[in-house]
Amino acid sequence: MFTRIDHVGIAVRDLEKSIVWYQTMFGLTVVAQEINEEQSVHEAMLLVDDGPQGGSHVQLLEPTRQDSPVGKYLARHGEGMHHIAYGVDDVEAAIATMATSGIRVLDRKPRHGAMNSRIAFMHPKDTGGVLTELVQAVKH
Amino acid sequence: MFTRIDHVGIAVRDLEKSIVWYQTMFGLTVVAQEINEEQSVHEAMLLVDDGPQGGSHVQLLEPTRQDSPVGKYLARHGEGMHHIAYGVDDVEAAIATMATSGIRVLDRKPRHGAMNSRIAFMHPKDTGGVLTELVQAVKH
Repeated sequence: MFTRIDHVGIAVRDLEKSIVWYQTMFGLTVVAQEINEEQSVHEAMLLVDDGPQGGSHVQLLEPTRQDSPVGKYLARHGEGMHHIAYGVDDVEAAIATMATSGIRVLDRKPRHGAMNSRIAFMHPKDTGGVLTELVQAVKH
Repeated sequence: MFTRIDHVGIAVRDLEKSIVWYQTMFGLTVVAQEINEEQSVHEAMLLVDDGPQGGSHVQLLEPTRQDSPVGKYLARHGEGMHHIAYGVDDVEAAIATMATSGIRVLDRKPRHGAMNSRIAFMHPKDTGGVLTELVQAVKH
């Protein structure tokens, strides 16, 4: 069902500082950066490795508002791992499969994700405490 | 420097129950299961996708002792994402690079990891609040 680990989302307080850190310390490369107004985050995708099904990335997330989900996460937990995202070929089909299995999908219609992907989040209470995202990447 | 996301480690209370959940809901396959006495965990590796550099996995971790690192994590946070592990070709070289960069490497000599890999953890206070592991997999 899943083609890869598309990314691991990491909540950070200062995106620019964290980007420089990941570039310098881990040698990762920024492949996209954008503000996602809907999710109230300023985000950057850093490539770990590319593959035939799409890449695996670290996604750094700085909230644009303190009362956003990532803002609240930072206030509660501090910086750290926020979610895991799996690549799928067909996000609508994956949403339907998850919903049929009894998992609450927070986005019944896919939302806009990084790099023009189409994404959906599932309720972490239904996925063992792990906020989990489905990602259909743009084919390249 | 990193060849892939080798795995995301997830702390769980009941390994067998969580394995069945990931198999049923996400269609993942168990490729290894073992008790790591040194880390006081009963762990399973579930393959997300395989690649030329090695696979990407979800690693489920059930503590064998409540006073172990994963046991303490569960007591504080409940079930959830525990660490991220990046694949490297040469773990000794990666340890040296990280140490030179000023990151505290908790294992100056590689330890035994899942599937006979050689691993080292870095101090999460030096890696933006994210417990980060280096993994040199056995070549196959």
